[in-house]
Amino acid sequence: MHSDRQQAIGVFDSGVGGLTVLKALMERLPGESTVYLGDTARVPYGTKSAEVVTRYSLKNADFLRTRGIKLLVVACNTASAAALPALRAHLDVPVVGVIEPGAEAAIARVPAGTAVGVIGTPGTIRSGAYQRALEALRPGVPVEVQPCPLFVPLAEEGWLSGEVPALVASEYLARFSGGSVGALVLGCTHYPLLKDVIRQTVGPRVVLVDSAEATAQATAALLAERGLLATPGDVPPTHRYYVTDVPDRFTEVGARFLGRPIVGAEQVDITYV
Amino acid sequence: MHSDRQQAIGVFDSGVGGLTVLKALMERLPGESTVYLGDTARVPYGTKSAEVVTRYSLKNADFLRTRGIKLLVVACNTASAAALPALRAHLDVPVVGVIEPGAEAAIARVPAGTAVGVIGTPGTIRSGAYQRALEALRPGVPVEVQPCPLFVPLAEEGWLSGEVPALVASEYLARFSGGSVGALVLGCTHYPLLKDVIRQTVGPRVVLVDSAEATAQATAALLAERGLLATPGDVPPTHRYYVTDVPDRFTEVGARFLGRPIVGAEQVDITYV
Repeated sequence: MHSDRQQAIGVFDSGVGGLTVLKALMERLPGESTVYLGDTARVPYGTKSAEVVTRYSLKNADFLRTRGIKLLVVACNTASAAALPALRAHLDVPVVGVIEPGAEAAIARVPAGTAVGVIGTPGTIRSGAYQRALEALRPGVPVEVQPCPLFVPLAEEGWLSGEVPALVASEYLARFSGGSVGALVLGCTHYPLLKDVIRQTVGPRVVLVDSAEATAQATAALLAERGLLATPGDVPPTHRYYVTDVPDRFTEVGARFLGRPIVGAEQVDITYV
Repeated sequence: MHSDRQQAIGVFDSGVGGLTVLKALMERLPGESTVYLGDTARVPYGTKSAEVVTRYSLKNADFLRTRGIKLLVVACNTASAAALPALRAHLDVPVVGVIEPGAEAAIARVPAGTAVGVIGTPGTIRSGAYQRALEALRPGVPVEVQPCPLFVPLAEEGWLSGEVPALVASEYLARFSGGSVGALVLGCTHYPLLKDVIRQTVGPRVVLVDSAEATAQATAALLAERGLLATPGDVPPTHRYYVTDVPDRFTEVGARFLGRPIVGAEQVDITYV
């Protein structure tokens, strides 16, 4: 048996989006093993209710627990917004979401009095989770939010540049292009793929905040604090991938998100976990 | 107890799209009761595998059976393409899909030798179900297919006209605008909502085939053949709606699809049916 320290970091998302967070984790914590679950049979989460997203998140977590994890990263903004309290009450390992790290990164990068913009799925925006996290860090901070429901299908389909993404981005983001916000939080793990078109729409002066790096940093800090960092050189780290639908598309699209090939993704049925 | 004749027609879809079929059924068979299930907790089906879509379809059918139905209409092209044989083997009531009626309507409207175009979700197109149905009706008929994955999110978000839908339609459908096909089958129950923009893109000479009316006709014929038509005036028809996620959005968006208000939609958990 491995000790807890040698167990993997568990990561889940509704699909491929959370691979942007996994990538940041692998870069910051190269000695750690990881196990990733993409719930591709029920993607997307962002247009579904908090109740349904919480139910799915608990099942995802239960599955990852069966694979031996020492910490869970919820690499999905919608699930972080809806299910973090339920996951923390349900699990006996620490749980890290993407919203608090993203809010902290935004606050660190804008001066007091400057507004922060947040874009995300309808579920994330409706939850008010970013608004609460920002307010807790800097009471009274002006926050402007905008749901962008078509960004997930565009990213999933690989329509990352050209006329259609530019036009969709302009419909959603024109209000942020006049310098009304100092930073814009990409409050969905799919959105970093559309960073170029988002940048072109909002202009060069708005700081774009991607929570992947901030979440990796929060994970590293929590592992260190709990004495759970893997012992270097003890066991070579492994990276496992599970999906709830057939893996073909995940393997293909996911490599774009992860920036390296995905090897050995395995399909699992977690309906009855 | 009602006799079989007075039982309802069961209809399911992944979400709101199948309401276009329900609308045609209500118009053609005003004396029939209906019970509709929208699997909004797992929408969309079109980007998922045949295996997962079949699993969901069987659960949907099992739920509708518990509500007392005399016939099942699969008002979703992806589910019709993936799951019809499994549903027919599993159920003891007749099952009608949307693909064969749609293919028949297309063949009836183009002369021999003229090509038929089919647009649908990636799942429907990949299945080859339309290609097989058209070939069975008219061996050798030229068929041109095109998956249009972004049409479902556009229709679900209500982006039905304007620059973005026009540009997306042009990316997918430009090949059909030169008169290469005599008819174009709208092989997804969401697509009738985008009919105007599809019409503008392919031009006035291509016949657009919507399978809703053809499916209602096939249902009426099958009920008559089996002696299952409701006795007029016996019991006033009822229309019930069930969804697997919270009903708010279904009720709101669905009214656009159904062309009348949706009253009393109820959320059900069919995970364990």
